[in-house]
Amino acid sequence: MSHANYMAQAIKLARKGWYTTRPNPRVGCVLVREGQILGEGAHLKAGEPHAEVYALRQAGERAQGADAYVTLEPCSHHGRTPPCAEALIKAGVKRVFVGMKDPNPLVAGRGLTLLQEAGIEVVSGLLQDQAEALNPGFIKRMQRGQPWVVAKQAMSLDGRTAMASGESQWITGAEARADVQRLRAASCAVVTGVNSLLADSSRLNVRDERFTPLSGFTQPLRVVLDSGLQTPPGAAIFQQPGSTLVLTNEESLQKQQTARKQLEDQGAEVAALPLAANGGLDLQALLTLLGERQCNQLLVEAGAKLTGAFVQQGLVDEFYLYIAAKFLGSQARGLLDLPGLEKLAAAPQMQILDVRALGQDWRFQLKRLEQH
Amino acid sequence: MSHANYMAQAIKLARKGWYTTRPNPRVGCVLVREGQILGEGAHLKAGEPHAEVYALRQAGERAQGADAYVTLEPCSHHGRTPPCAEALIKAGVKRVFVGMKDPNPLVAGRGLTLLQEAGIEVVSGLLQDQAEALNPGFIKRMQRGQPWVVAKQAMSLDGRTAMASGESQWITGAEARADVQRLRAASCAVVTGVNSLLADSSRLNVRDERFTPLSGFTQPLRVVLDSGLQTPPGAAIFQQPGSTLVLTNEESLQKQQTARKQLEDQGAEVAALPLAANGGLDLQALLTLLGERQCNQLLVEAGAKLTGAFVQQGLVDEFYLYIAAKFLGSQARGLLDLPGLEKLAAAPQMQILDVRALGQDWRFQLKRLEQH
Repeated sequence: MSHANYMAQAIKLARKGWYTTRPNPRVGCVLVREGQILGEGAHLKAGEPHAEVYALRQAGERAQGADAYVTLEPCSHHGRTPPCAEALIKAGVKRVFVGMKDPNPLVAGRGLTLLQEAGIEVVSGLLQDQAEALNPGFIKRMQRGQPWVVAKQAMSLDGRTAMASGESQWITGAEARADVQRLRAASCAVVTGVNSLLADSSRLNVRDERFTPLSGFTQPLRVVLDSGLQTPPGAAIFQQPGSTLVLTNEESLQKQQTARKQLEDQGAEVAALPLAANGGLDLQALLTLLGERQCNQLLVEAGAKLTGAFVQQGLVDEFYLYIAAKFLGSQARGLLDLPGLEKLAAAPQMQILDVRALGQDWRFQLKRLEQH
Repeated sequence: MSHANYMAQAIKLARKGWYTTRPNPRVGCVLVREGQILGEGAHLKAGEPHAEVYALRQAGERAQGADAYVTLEPCSHHGRTPPCAEALIKAGVKRVFVGMKDPNPLVAGRGLTLLQEAGIEVVSGLLQDQAEALNPGFIKRMQRGQPWVVAKQAMSLDGRTAMASGESQWITGAEARADVQRLRAASCAVVTGVNSLLADSSRLNVRDERFTPLSGFTQPLRVVLDSGLQTPPGAAIFQQPGSTLVLTNEESLQKQQTARKQLEDQGAEVAALPLAANGGLDLQALLTLLGERQCNQLLVEAGAKLTGAFVQQGLVDEFYLYIAAKFLGSQARGLLDLPGLEKLAAAPQMQILDVRALGQDWRFQLKRLEQH
């Protein structure tokens, strides 16, 4: 077994927390001495011990002189748990291999320095890409104060999401819909627009029992963008476990006290966002607000207008496009409104990361192509 | 080596004629005795010997007592060459393995009967699916008098073929365009509508030097559907090697003698098609006309309206969809006009046969899903 093999095992352990660690990062740890794995740990749930602690507990005194493989730089601060860097020092590990440094620019490297000052050899950046892929949301929030934005749409082969009448249930099959449940379960918040909410009676919660029974699982925050405070208090979204945040503009918030009160009576929080230049709610302000609330990943499940606005403003980090093998024709509803886009050269370029079959449908995983 | 292995080799040989045998079928033949391949042949070009003849020539007297593997039932009629069934009998082969029977219902089985009457053991249907896949066009024409219809479109991820302005060159990259050249080269005819011709200055010919130098290669017939005889005599399509057929309605053919004469002066043939119920030219009549002209495969390279009409009338057998990793937005032009389609349940269902990367683009190969 090579160093990379042990780090790969730590990454695999970290994935155990995929749906449950938020707002914390997913972290895995392996302790190895003389080719033997002595301890394994993963951070599974906020408030519970970090990955290093579980691995150290399992290894016990045998951790003395061992190598530690941790996907993320061990923490150096006293939070809900004592700093892991100190725990590793106390346990007497000899070397620490780290997948990536702490993404928080204010503390990055502190844990590594603590270790080095204690005479421990530190190797950072082992399988760094895979380590980073564990926590795109946590990393972005630490670095930029905003969540990682994932958009999702289901469409026909000719790029249509619904018939002209609005009929859209269901374009894609059960496997694609189950995959969307997976995306929701991995997100801290899901956002939609009031028009989609009204048209589709969206519930936006995680119902799939692969996820809901997991210890530490919490429903993503449901966010409705609703400038005119039109969300009906009887909407299905309020009947689901978890919280709903209705975001409107300052004027509606002040003037529509009755509507606001009715929504609050349903348990919803109602708050205001500033307006953007295009007259809609400011999406940058939305992302900042969610970042402040420790949201690592936001899933956009909305119609052509709102999803188009996210794409056009360059705010979508990752796009999942589910494609059903049918043609709906040019009268049917389009995927994305991108107003003012007239030149082919100005079209948003995506990079296709993955293409796979999901039952009878196909899924494209895209990311924004950074223009250099 | 098993029987299937030898047939697979015959199928591989048949593919050598992919771009050149038309209007004839692609056929391969292998002669084997005591585990040794004694002769191999492929039909490469109309007017030249059939696959069996090449294989028998190569084997010479050693064909006596050999097994023959032929992808298509040996012919029993005296055409431009003597019947292959007789040639196999004369050569003294012991057994004949056949991929598929002759698709022409008038002669199917005759060649096999001839062989059997001569005391030769016959096994038919070996690797039948692969043998049939060599000749979808020839088979359909023999059975139904119409060519196999392949449609092709290039689009963005959101199903758009051009900007609102019409700007569309180029949505996809060089690899996708080279693949379209391959589709053209394998087709007996390429059809477009006059509006696409005008918008794109289409030439519709094969320019790729992977194909044009092949012995026996002929340019596909270029067909323009042009009810109003608006095709300009100076259009680029007339400046290419190969023939052009302009199809209009009876009224335009009679009344627009000048336009007709000008097109004929450019070397084009001008003819009339009946009108369909929707007011356009009758596409079934088009296919029958092309079938009568021994067209095995028709490639539809047209816009949303004409391609949509082919799809909506259930005339597309195979669809190649080239997808570029960009978004053009809902103002841009749609893929297919399917007028009157209002219910999701009525949407044309496709089956996805193959999905692959072509440079930065992706290609979906689709066929119509037969509704049972």
